[in-house]
Amino acid sequence: MRVLGVDPGSAVTGFGVVDGAGGGFRYVSAGAIRTDSREPAPFRLKQIHDDLLGIIDEFQPEALSLERHFVAQNVQSAFRIGEARAAAMIAAAERGVPLFEYPPTEVKISVAAHGHADKSQVRLMVLRTLHLHPASEFAADATDALALAICHAGRARAAAPAATIDRRRAAAPRTRVR
Amino acid sequence: MRVLGVDPGSAVTGFGVVDGAGGGFRYVSAGAIRTDSREPAPFRLKQIHDDLLGIIDEFQPEALSLERHFVAQNVQSAFRIGEARAAAMIAAAERGVPLFEYPPTEVKISVAAHGHADKSQVRLMVLRTLHLHPASEFAADATDALALAICHAGRARAAAPAATIDRRRAAAPRTRVR
Repeated sequence: MRVLGVDPGSAVTGFGVVDGAGGGFRYVSAGAIRTDSREPAPFRLKQIHDDLLGIIDEFQPEALSLERHFVAQNVQSAFRIGEARAAAMIAAAERGVPLFEYPPTEVKISVAAHGHADKSQVRLMVLRTLHLHPASEFAADATDALALAICHAGRARAAAPAATIDRRRAAAPRTRVR
Repeated sequence: MRVLGVDPGSAVTGFGVVDGAGGGFRYVSAGAIRTDSREPAPFRLKQIHDDLLGIIDEFQPEALSLERHFVAQNVQSAFRIGEARAAAMIAAAERGVPLFEYPPTEVKISVAAHGHADKSQVRLMVLRTLHLHPASEFAADATDALALAICHAGRARAAAPAATIDRRRAAAPRTRVR
């Protein structure tokens, strides 16, 4: 299954595409959508939205894995994160791509085996999981997005055999939001 | 000048269209976009986005006036407000409609002459300003959106004569965000 991970932010939105099949994961693409802070907010959100539509059209993911935030530095910062998240959500809905949300701890557990891994540990484990050279140059937002994609692809794979046992349960994994 | 006011919320998004010209304001349209809380968030945001695109196409406003929030009950509620705001911002950017943001106090001052007016006072003043019967049935979110439209239309009109004196200043009113 091909998954697009998205780590939304008003300044930088990371994205990462991963194929998960058989016994492992395969890197497909990753990068960061950067917006100009001097541009007005509607223009920047439209850019995130349009770029994500282009990425969905190019890579045809079967699912979009989005970071679910529970905390923010302050209310203003929560408004900004919400705005960037919506740009991704609307793009997913427009292309009919199912959206799944994962809290940071769950993403860390899925790549680094524990929920308290720091940024550099997550980055190294993402590169190792995808058989990429440890010195590969990726923006931190891109490796975070790859981790989100791995997190969902791994869960979807784990859930698949269960479908033969309990089809209802497999159809509605507990982290599914949409 | 025709202004579309939008009061965004994930459950109910109010909208109101007002023409401001000469000595007064004229009611054009108002209503509320209601989303089903049982539907997934991406679907609901796409609905707000799509409905606002339809309203922009139908009424061809020259400006979109959006409520600028400074407070929220909590961080989760700020995320939700940010998401709904983005649906309006992206629609405005897609149609090239300039967006202006006003804090609630400024909106209240523009319709009720003071910043501490309660909901029912704002509603009555909006109906009086637009020469609508006081018993007119409007959702509270619709009259809030009409107040936002009046707020911007009034400011744009006040700023207009200044353009002959100081063109630069009139081109960039202080509340303009985009």
